[in-house]
Amino acid sequence: MADEPGGPELKIGVIGIDHGHIVGMVDGMLDAGAKVVAWATGVQTSNEQREAFQKGYPEAVEKSAREILEDETISLVLSAAINAHRADIAIAAMRHGKDVLVDKPGCVNLDQLSRVREVVTETNKIWSIYFAERVNAESSTLADQLIAQGRIGDVVQVIGQGPHSLSPSTRPSWFWDLNLAGGILADLGTHQIDQFLHFTGSREATILSAFVDNVATPERPGFQDFGEVLLEGDEGRGFARVDWLSPKGLPVLGDGRIMIMGTEGSIELRKFIDLAGRDGADHLFLANDKGVNYFDAGGAGKPFFVRLLKDIENRTYTAMSQEHAFLVTDLALRAQSIGEGEENW
Amino acid sequence: MADEPGGPELKIGVIGIDHGHIVGMVDGMLDAGAKVVAWATGVQTSNEQREAFQKGYPEAVEKSAREILEDETISLVLSAAINAHRADIAIAAMRHGKDVLVDKPGCVNLDQLSRVREVVTETNKIWSIYFAERVNAESSTLADQLIAQGRIGDVVQVIGQGPHSLSPSTRPSWFWDLNLAGGILADLGTHQIDQFLHFTGSREATILSAFVDNVATPERPGFQDFGEVLLEGDEGRGFARVDWLSPKGLPVLGDGRIMIMGTEGSIELRKFIDLAGRDGADHLFLANDKGVNYFDAGGAGKPFFVRLLKDIENRTYTAMSQEHAFLVTDLALRAQSIGEGEENW
Repeated sequence: MADEPGGPELKIGVIGIDHGHIVGMVDGMLDAGAKVVAWATGVQTSNEQREAFQKGYPEAVEKSAREILEDETISLVLSAAINAHRADIAIAAMRHGKDVLVDKPGCVNLDQLSRVREVVTETNKIWSIYFAERVNAESSTLADQLIAQGRIGDVVQVIGQGPHSLSPSTRPSWFWDLNLAGGILADLGTHQIDQFLHFTGSREATILSAFVDNVATPERPGFQDFGEVLLEGDEGRGFARVDWLSPKGLPVLGDGRIMIMGTEGSIELRKFIDLAGRDGADHLFLANDKGVNYFDAGGAGKPFFVRLLKDIENRTYTAMSQEHAFLVTDLALRAQSIGEGEENW
Repeated sequence: MADEPGGPELKIGVIGIDHGHIVGMVDGMLDAGAKVVAWATGVQTSNEQREAFQKGYPEAVEKSAREILEDETISLVLSAAINAHRADIAIAAMRHGKDVLVDKPGCVNLDQLSRVREVVTETNKIWSIYFAERVNAESSTLADQLIAQGRIGDVVQVIGQGPHSLSPSTRPSWFWDLNLAGGILADLGTHQIDQFLHFTGSREATILSAFVDNVATPERPGFQDFGEVLLEGDEGRGFARVDWLSPKGLPVLGDGRIMIMGTEGSIELRKFIDLAGRDGADHLFLANDKGVNYFDAGGAGKPFFVRLLKDIENRTYTAMSQEHAFLVTDLALRAQSIGEGEENW
């Protein structure tokens, strides 16, 4: 591997392509300058998914997971395996000297999280999580910039609404299994908790209330299609709803919204659609003492990926602190337990 | 008083014009066909307020509160007195045989509410509350119609955001006194709790969490500029934020929003402004399996007032059930206590 201007080229191996997020993860790292060399996936992955991945990334060679783990030229493992398998893939990768970027959720139970924490401590490897609704959304990048410029003062509260379209016929069997997918707050809740902690700047948080239910999917009795969580952080407050009930009439997967309220103004993100309004995605609305402004956030960039690439090189944590990845996961899993009535408030 | 087609003309007396809501209250009843004959107000009312009222309603004669109470031709007393005075005005009016419409909040403490309840039982008079953000908002009327048509299925959750502009120089001294104004959840919270109960159709509810704080008004240490409440009703769930931090750059008092999520779609109300979007107020966005639709709700009407007028004549409760007025007030006052840490959750 020759040293090139800007440092050696980072080689990526992919283990697990069961969730479509893998495309955003690979593309983000490719855009940042990395190279995807190999991929592996599990027996439950459909032929359509395998073919699509092969077609999308012809430069990558399909191998076994073991071959990827043992390939010393690979520095970073990406995984969008079945939710419940990501922790063990991450652990194996870190023990083989690789950093890791897993799709959210990184873990589906607290035992997995505890084991991941141990291996991070043991190996000093990076365990990062792809919270797509923030790190792959340019409206979030612009929000970061506006908040850093003081345009809404100090952030007081983040309200998130994360509807997702269920499209049951497209879902693999593991999606319906709580033990494999995690519950709705363990899974979709991570996006919301990530954004709450990130935008408020909180490094600690308490769950004030959490709730999960099946309100409109009677044909799947064990499935959770609705979740709520209320949080109090050391730097602000957060409430979120997530659901699998986004109506079919929307041209996007869901009308994801984030309202960031500050002491001197507020920012609303209409991430995927501006209902009956402007075309496209990445809409940001700023209201403060100077007036009301609309921003098309397209072009604001997705700095997460370049930062992660540099972090891997420099052994830093500029893309995401290790504690943040742990805290989001811990809160999401605890909220899930509380919502299921398994833990006291 | 001659019988006219459609029944005798309802005569209104106004006692207390300290809050600007009195204009919406009087206008609503005038539009419904009532007549305002007399008004009285307290010593703290400013000359500007008195002159504006006199100019707005020259047909009404300024009298003492006692004269209005003792005028047997007056059937309905309206009051937007100082918040803490409304309960006693309502009690006096009911004991003088009159029905009552008070501005929100109807009470600032549970003792007042308990006394109002007793007098309602004793007199069988109507104690109704003007929840302006619903009964005076045509977008809410249209939401009622769309929900009744089944356009979003069963309502699951209502998320409300009620920012208000503080404009401190325009506020009378009593506004800053918690004992006279009530706290932020006791006051602004009533709008949100009213809408949560109304749109979910809940007749019972539990407060899961409540919070009040002063986050950005250090010059008024005892003042609460931020409040949150999370509720679970027998027919749905609700979360709301209220605040006095709406930025000066908005051309309206606040970007009040209601998101009503149903099992088959959702309705968003942008009541007072469509940020950087369409002109005017009363914007409604419907998303369901049929698609996304924008509605200008202007013209949907404010049926509350005609219903109240008929209720007074027919001794019915079509405008608002008596229990709803009690329940909103009870929940708002309890949320306030919980938020202040005076009551356990």
